[in-house]
Amino acid sequence: MKEDPDLPIGLFDSGIGGLTVLREIVQLLPGESTLYLGDTARVPYGGRSKETVRRFSCQAGDYLARQGIKLLIVACNTATAMAIGPLRERFTIPVIGVVEPGARAAVSRTRSGTVGVIGTRATIQSGAYENAIQAIEPGLRVVGQACPLFVPLVEEGWLQHQVTEEIARIYLAPFRAMGVDTVVLGCTHYPLLRTLLQRVLGPEVTLVDSAREVARAVKEILDRGPRRSRSRDPVQRILVTDSAENFRRVARNFMGQLPEEIRQVRLI
Amino acid sequence: MKEDPDLPIGLFDSGIGGLTVLREIVQLLPGESTLYLGDTARVPYGGRSKETVRRFSCQAGDYLARQGIKLLIVACNTATAMAIGPLRERFTIPVIGVVEPGARAAVSRTRSGTVGVIGTRATIQSGAYENAIQAIEPGLRVVGQACPLFVPLVEEGWLQHQVTEEIARIYLAPFRAMGVDTVVLGCTHYPLLRTLLQRVLGPEVTLVDSAREVARAVKEILDRGPRRSRSRDPVQRILVTDSAENFRRVARNFMGQLPEEIRQVRLI
Repeated sequence: MKEDPDLPIGLFDSGIGGLTVLREIVQLLPGESTLYLGDTARVPYGGRSKETVRRFSCQAGDYLARQGIKLLIVACNTATAMAIGPLRERFTIPVIGVVEPGARAAVSRTRSGTVGVIGTRATIQSGAYENAIQAIEPGLRVVGQACPLFVPLVEEGWLQHQVTEEIARIYLAPFRAMGVDTVVLGCTHYPLLRTLLQRVLGPEVTLVDSAREVARAVKEILDRGPRRSRSRDPVQRILVTDSAENFRRVARNFMGQLPEEIRQVRLI
Repeated sequence: MKEDPDLPIGLFDSGIGGLTVLREIVQLLPGESTLYLGDTARVPYGGRSKETVRRFSCQAGDYLARQGIKLLIVACNTATAMAIGPLRERFTIPVIGVVEPGARAAVSRTRSGTVGVIGTRATIQSGAYENAIQAIEPGLRVVGQACPLFVPLVEEGWLQHQVTEEIARIYLAPFRAMGVDTVVLGCTHYPLLRTLLQRVLGPEVTLVDSAREVARAVKEILDRGPRRSRSRDPVQRILVTDSAENFRRVARNFMGQLPEEIRQVRLI
């Protein structure tokens, strides 16, 4: 990696969900600076067309690249599923999506050979996890299930609500019948439902949190490059495209301690 | 009204919900042409800040104005609540929102003097219905309740689902205790939940569908102006900012017979 090692790690998400990735990055790489962009004026991406998700993702990536970053994390499953190719063509810095690390973890953990993936409608329809998993291990069976109500339920704060559990039972019923033993949380909002999902799926099912796997993949890349200089303290900054106050209110659920600086910007 | 009476009626909504207004317009004014714009690339507006909703609404209004319309309907409660003022300043044609007609209907129908309003978080927080109702009848009590899960439930198609009914019971519980006898459906998605909401609220509660009231208000305005010429058949056209196919798939729930022409456009 030839970029200045003192530059921050850039992350973008359609909104707030990518904070689960930021949290893991800050925890695993506490010496690094980060610059997070949440496109909160246009969230959610999960129901939009590929063309629109690509356009929005390239605008977000361009904005971060102009600020100066040494590595770009696409901290949104929908954006990764639909736009990782165009983003990689666009930039010379490493571009890390959430799908491949999650797929690798799922492959290494399944014993039954049947992996479940939950995500937004766009992520599931894209088949991105299925493709990534079968590229590693063609014999595995992948069962996708779109769970479009999970994001609004998380944003409503109903993380342990009985209604959320009922909806989870409806969405996840097919997994039990099909012998799924490993489920990828294919949306950055879903780690907040982890306890509830584990209860619904049963203790014998392994949950794969892509956020954690991404942090490990990033650490591997950075460990191969030059070290960040110790002369300046790392800085964590957040940019959003809608009101910073609204973001701050919901963000506490996703990340205990928020960076001081949350600033509203325009991408276009 | 000095505009060409042969121009279409323009409507915009953050996405698909405004079709409930379009349906009422086409039914009540079958001789009129309509031009509907759904900002599906940036839907929903309901959780965004006032500044962002105003910016998006002005972009949508400008786009329709450039196409040529004789009257603008803001067929979205959030956009009406947050942007009707700037929109009225911007255009010389009549600009009709969904809030005032709904408020007038609620005032004329309540007997208990306590009106409930349900809507997105943004609409309820704006206090737009409360202000509009109390401007007509200062003595009335208005109780607002944000129902952020209703829009995703409608878009999931769970119009009669037991889970939707449970969520409705949770959201609407305060209304019963407070003696609400009239409830304004303050979001253009909610008419699709009408049967379920009536069941939850009980037959003694009157539901006010703003969509229907808006159509009546528009008819009153048009009846005062010159007639549309009979030489050309009316044309119904729909513009969307995300994929037309995605729109067509979900739109059937909102409007039985969709216009032939649904075209994707860019506002900016």
